Amino acid sequence: MTDDKHHVVIIGGGFGGLYAAQKLKRAPVRVTLIDRRNFHLFQPLLYQVATGTLSPANIAAPLRSTMKRHPNTNTLLAEASDFDLAGRRVLLTDGRIEYDSLIVAAGATHNYFGNDHWEPLAPGLKTLEDANEMRRRILLAFEAAEREPDPQKVSAWLTFIVVGGGPTGVELAGALAELARDTFRHNFRAIHPEDSEIILVEGRERVLPTYPPRLSAKARQALAKLGITVRCGVRITDIQADCVTLTSGEQTEAIPTRTVLWGAGVAASPLGKKLADAAGIETDRDGRVPVEPDLTLAGHPEIFVVGDLARCPDGQGGTLPGVAQVAMQQGHYAARTIRRRLGGKTLGPFRYHDRGSMATIGRMRAVADLGKSTFSGSFAWFLWLFVHLMYIVTFQNRLLILVQWAASYLSWNRAARLIMGKSPLPLWQTTDIAHQPPTEK
Amino acid sequence: MTDDKHHVVIIGGGFGGLYAAQKLKRAPVRVTLIDRRNFHLFQPLLYQVATGTLSPANIAAPLRSTMKRHPNTNTLLAEASDFDLAGRRVLLTDGRIEYDSLIVAAGATHNYFGNDHWEPLAPGLKTLEDANEMRRRILLAFEAAEREPDPQKVSAWLTFIVVGGGPTGVELAGALAELARDTFRHNFRAIHPEDSEIILVEGRERVLPTYPPRLSAKARQALAKLGITVRCGVRITDIQADCVTLTSGEQTEAIPTRTVLWGAGVAASPLGKKLADAAGIETDRDGRVPVEPDLTLAGHPEIFVVGDLARCPDGQGGTLPGVAQVAMQQGHYAARTIRRRLGGKTLGPFRYHDRGSMATIGRMRAVADLGKSTFSGSFAWFLWLFVHLMYIVTFQNRLLILVQWAASYLSWNRAARLIMGKSPLPLWQTTDIAHQPPTEK
Repeated sequence: MTDDKHHVVIIGGGFGGLYAAQKLKRAPVRVTLIDRRNFHLFQPLLYQVATGTLSPANIAAPLRSTMKRHPNTNTLLAEASDFDLAGRRVLLTDGRIEYDSLIVAAGATHNYFGNDHWEPLAPGLKTLEDANEMRRRILLAFEAAEREPDPQKVSAWLTFIVVGGGPTGVELAGALAELARDTFRHNFRAIHPEDSEIILVEGRERVLPTYPPRLSAKARQALAKLGITVRCGVRITDIQADCVTLTSGEQTEAIPTRTVLWGAGVAASPLGKKLADAAGIETDRDGRVPVEPDLTLAGHPEIFVVGDLARCPDGQGGTLPGVAQVAMQQGHYAARTIRRRLGGKTLGPFRYHDRGSMATIGRMRAVADLGKSTFSGSFAWFLWLFVHLMYIVTFQNRLLILVQWAASYLSWNRAARLIMGKSPLPLWQTTDIAHQPPTEK
Repeated sequence: MTDDKHHVVIIGGGFGGLYAAQKLKRAPVRVTLIDRRNFHLFQPLLYQVATGTLSPANIAAPLRSTMKRHPNTNTLLAEASDFDLAGRRVLLTDGRIEYDSLIVAAGATHNYFGNDHWEPLAPGLKTLEDANEMRRRILLAFEAAEREPDPQKVSAWLTFIVVGGGPTGVELAGALAELARDTFRHNFRAIHPEDSEIILVEGRERVLPTYPPRLSAKARQALAKLGITVRCGVRITDIQADCVTLTSGEQTEAIPTRTVLWGAGVAASPLGKKLADAAGIETDRDGRVPVEPDLTLAGHPEIFVVGDLARCPDGQGGTLPGVAQVAMQQGHYAARTIRRRLGGKTLGPFRYHDRGSMATIGRMRAVADLGKSTFSGSFAWFLWLFVHLMYIVTFQNRLLILVQWAASYLSWNRAARLIMGKSPLPLWQTTDIAHQPPTEK
């Protein structure tokens, strides 16, 4: 049964959508929160699932559970497919839903910059399935190396290319290095996992290019200490099943490898294009939807676009980055605007308050840029731990993550090292690994 | 490089294989532990993964990690496919391996009693993938019900049939009832999950038929208290996508349901048949390999068969059940026999020491049969908790499970309620669920 209350539809249960829904808890509106998945995902820790420290459920919170104390909110497991702006309706793959106000927070996906055929060879890291797939490939690479008699092929299995020197790439490379050098100690008999070659490739001139140069240098030092090879100013120009081609200026170089992990660019959800088309505007190169200063769509004050999907000026000639902080603040802002309007009031334009950014690089090492001050080393690391735990959605997950971080800190172990999937040995069938007699060292 | 030491090959890293490998740690042998998976799985808690209490990694321990302090042991991620008994070789799908002694502990799989076409409609519970699939179906059933306007179809989505009244079926039905009645409270808007109908079907005359009748009666009471309908002396004679047929004597009954969970019989791994064929003997009806009193294969004293794969007399005219306890003791026995033989000594026949069995049915309720004494109620429940935690392989997992049990006990919540998989909405496409306008209650 429907009632007369103002109906707010929110598409996406990520940081933007979830924070908007939470802010509407006591508003005189009814809310429908739509997501294709039944959980909110804490994406900043996905790399810890990919490297076997955490389990998928530790960084996910069931949306219904987070909304259970919101009697005005209905959670819908559904997929939005298009918009009927004149009729104020969202089209779903299996129905449609009318709105009075709409908040579109559909997020972003990987960006292979026109090389979508690389995706099967170089998985990205946006969903829990991605993280499981990455974990599976990483673990199977070591298993394949253990079985491989040809030293050259062993070396290709033990070479890992991480593409992208942003926070995702840096954190992923760091965790991978610790996995190989510490966690796998004494685990293998034929190979030395600590001899793995981990290469971090960044197209621009330094890692963490959006951070102050001083922190980039610190991060590079920390990466080097973990034995990671950092290649800046270098682009990937080809990916094959057993080789990657790097290009720097005129020079190209082929590196034999079986594992390429994609931590580079993001593209807005395809829903952005649908929305822009419906409104008669253009998305930007990354598929993001340009928004007005109050985060609404031009000509449609009832539609807000927030988070990674929105192209929002940063007031200094650039645009706001696609990070959790921006999405949370924008979600809050959209919800507050809707509440104000219902009271006949207005709200000034959206202003982003940058509380800083940080990235961790192995144990006890991190970099933090808090605007006024920058930190690196163990203080930044503790800050990183604290802030990430604080934003994890449920208390239980906070506790579980803390236990697992403590355990892997103390024991160097990573417990969630499962190779999952119906047929766990697919790599075996594509390579000719002869059986190697057991060896002792 | 191979050396001259006696080579023990163990097939399977379950309870039988793992306990055998651990007992050989200090023996003057080299050991190769072969498993298709890279982890040891604590199967008795699989139902808690299927119902969203625990994460897969909590009940799995990476085999390499458990063997890292065993310098004489090589872990091989590989699949055994056949045996060359004359050449003393195990054939792998991608190679072969020679042995001096062989311990076959390949375990068991589901048994649909000749109705293998039921498997896609009624998933079993033997692997982590099975548990994820069960969890997915259970959670999607509630989501589908929430979206369904036709009350009859809603009722089919909210009817769950659990097949098999042994410990697996009883524990699964209990957890499912708590999920529906407690965890999902206030989570939905259109349906009342607490009205779900959970039907436990057992072919024999009572649930937990291997337990003393007094405990079966207690278990039945506990199930009834959770609102579970127990149907004994009833067999499943047909399973369709939207209906199950139950047969009792002459009577048949069709129950509309979308979710059938298979907790009934087990069949030995197909590797048992290969081994029996190679040795020229017959397996029993369940595919188990008959063994001598010392767990060896007739005519092959160098080959031990342990765990669910072995058909081992219980000394009272029956055979030992396929439970973890039997497998552990048999694994230990096989390892001890090998050590004795190397010292020129022998060991008496295998004797099983039954330390009792137990099953839990919801919070604070369990039944325990310790042979001399039987318990039910909260004491049995604490005993169940303690014993299961004790046998979990890693300390970290013990702690994580404890935290999650405590959290779900205190909050009635289950955190691991993720619907995973590349396309999370498959049921939607096979049914015509119209969009239902959001309702408030």
